Amino acid sequence: MRVHAYAAPAAAEPLAPTIIERRDVGPNDVLIEVEYAGICHSDIHTVNGDWGPQPYPLVPGHEIVGIVTEVGAAVTRHQVGDRVGVGCMVNACGECANCRNGDEQYCLDGMVPTYGGVDRDGTVTQGGYSTHVVVDAGFVLSVPEGIDPAAAAPLLCAGITTYSPLRRWGAGPGKKVAVVGLGGLGHMAVKIAHAMGAEVTVLSQSLKKQEDGLRLGADHYHATGDPDTFERLAGRFDLIVNTVSARIDLDAYLGLLAVDGTLVNVGAPAEPLSLNVFSLIGARRSYAGSMIGGIAETQEMLNFCAEHRIGADVELISADQINEAYRRVLASDVRYRFVIDTATLG
Amino acid sequence: MRVHAYAAPAAAEPLAPTIIERRDVGPNDVLIEVEYAGICHSDIHTVNGDWGPQPYPLVPGHEIVGIVTEVGAAVTRHQVGDRVGVGCMVNACGECANCRNGDEQYCLDGMVPTYGGVDRDGTVTQGGYSTHVVVDAGFVLSVPEGIDPAAAAPLLCAGITTYSPLRRWGAGPGKKVAVVGLGGLGHMAVKIAHAMGAEVTVLSQSLKKQEDGLRLGADHYHATGDPDTFERLAGRFDLIVNTVSARIDLDAYLGLLAVDGTLVNVGAPAEPLSLNVFSLIGARRSYAGSMIGGIAETQEMLNFCAEHRIGADVELISADQINEAYRRVLASDVRYRFVIDTATLG
Repeated sequence: MRVHAYAAPAAAEPLAPTIIERRDVGPNDVLIEVEYAGICHSDIHTVNGDWGPQPYPLVPGHEIVGIVTEVGAAVTRHQVGDRVGVGCMVNACGECANCRNGDEQYCLDGMVPTYGGVDRDGTVTQGGYSTHVVVDAGFVLSVPEGIDPAAAAPLLCAGITTYSPLRRWGAGPGKKVAVVGLGGLGHMAVKIAHAMGAEVTVLSQSLKKQEDGLRLGADHYHATGDPDTFERLAGRFDLIVNTVSARIDLDAYLGLLAVDGTLVNVGAPAEPLSLNVFSLIGARRSYAGSMIGGIAETQEMLNFCAEHRIGADVELISADQINEAYRRVLASDVRYRFVIDTATLG
Repeated sequence: MRVHAYAAPAAAEPLAPTIIERRDVGPNDVLIEVEYAGICHSDIHTVNGDWGPQPYPLVPGHEIVGIVTEVGAAVTRHQVGDRVGVGCMVNACGECANCRNGDEQYCLDGMVPTYGGVDRDGTVTQGGYSTHVVVDAGFVLSVPEGIDPAAAAPLLCAGITTYSPLRRWGAGPGKKVAVVGLGGLGHMAVKIAHAMGAEVTVLSQSLKKQEDGLRLGADHYHATGDPDTFERLAGRFDLIVNTVSARIDLDAYLGLLAVDGTLVNVGAPAEPLSLNVFSLIGARRSYAGSMIGGIAETQEMLNFCAEHRIGADVELISADQINEAYRRVLASDVRYRFVIDTATLG
């Protein structure tokens, strides 16, 4: 099956329209007609080759929402006509301890990323900037009624990436949660933490987006560019979710945690970070990392978002605006996620 | 009250016999005739001034066991004749959130260390290398029957320092726990983790102390000097307790953790450490720190050790061997804790 897509022809070259081949629908596969594909910051890093060489031409996109148009003979979980989603992974071994535990993202054999990976049948995966995608049914999520489908697309990466650590580290009533950075990930973290019942603080470089932050559900908003912030908020938080991949002064942020507090990174700078172990020992603090979430947990997140009427704040674009959108993401000029209307790809 | 003691007259000078003044027993105080005082590695750092200037002459010692010989009018918790212990702290504000939560070691007003601190009455605290000590009853622990009192002394620091993180991070049946370093702290961590029912692995520079490690309760013993160790044990442990204060290759040790595993430091190097955030993100790992434990938890630890017949492995020395013992501790030539028979101080 040959389908329309937008691909990076080589590292750091602009994306361009192309035609790609999708595999035949196998007994466990689902064919999805893509409606919407979110643009994640990591798409840009990947196609630019920042994270290592890629198999070009490469079609990015791992925030996918669409409609099932065909299912394999063995598929019972999804039916033709269902609205479904696909996130950052499309396969995993299914047999290792982590897969069995619902942590497919940490598959010991390596999970298969939605694009630029090698699927278990040996084909190179191509992502969601495309009119159709064929995915193993076990990695296809149901998108519940109650979320606008365009606003649901970014939940498949930005949503689960923030939901998972918020759940794991107990965001909820009586908990003080800080979110570092108010971008695509950060704005989802604020909405979800607020819906979980936590007291939410945004820590952003400046107060430029303060009004947005409060509208999204934050109770407080502080500028990290103001050195007083770190003094005034010392020992305040139970959990800090750091959505910023750039290097930060870890000791300064750890100092904002109460006893037993956790700072969790959901992104990572390429270079190592430095920290003073006393920043941890002085209040039994933890520094942790988290990467997306498992499939069952992603479904739980979608259900939670539907129940709380949470979607991403999106700016819908047509395919010919993708390269411009990339430039704007790199300039932090997006509130808060670009989503491609894939009807414009054809 | 003037009592015999051993004090450091100045930074990096040998300890020498002296006479110090103990305060009168106040209404909330307990007077303890010290029987045994453990020598902790941190005593040496402190009297040497490695961790900042000290009020000399300074009497170290925060692993104290003795007999109550007088109690203040308001004291109900202890009686004359009781065997009791004193650990790393002798006071705290009692009113802050952390004190109210039983985490006096993280008192927001600053806990009062057993020596070299300023007590809440304004006097400088002097430690356990001394025939008598006067301590607020709230910071005096009961030493249960069933532990040899000399072997109980090191529990007040080395015991609680390892017990607390083992408890907090769930050491127990079905859990794989590694202990880095087999010194005073490490040998207690092995005994306690084993008694909690965990599968215990020692990670030591060489296999020199392997026989000891297995005797103390370890199930496995590996040399970290062998690079194969880090490959063979990758992703193995739920919890690693690092008792080594020297700089380590954090990324290598984090790689030994399973999904959701925690590496916890109970000591800290003076210089910052470097880590690659991907080491955390790749398996939702945490890097944490822990400092001794609260008073209620220290009592719980003593009761646990009595129930499981756990004490430190000690080498009993007389006061005139203290300086030689310091040299041997610095040379890692102790199995596994020197304890001063304070009857020899007079």
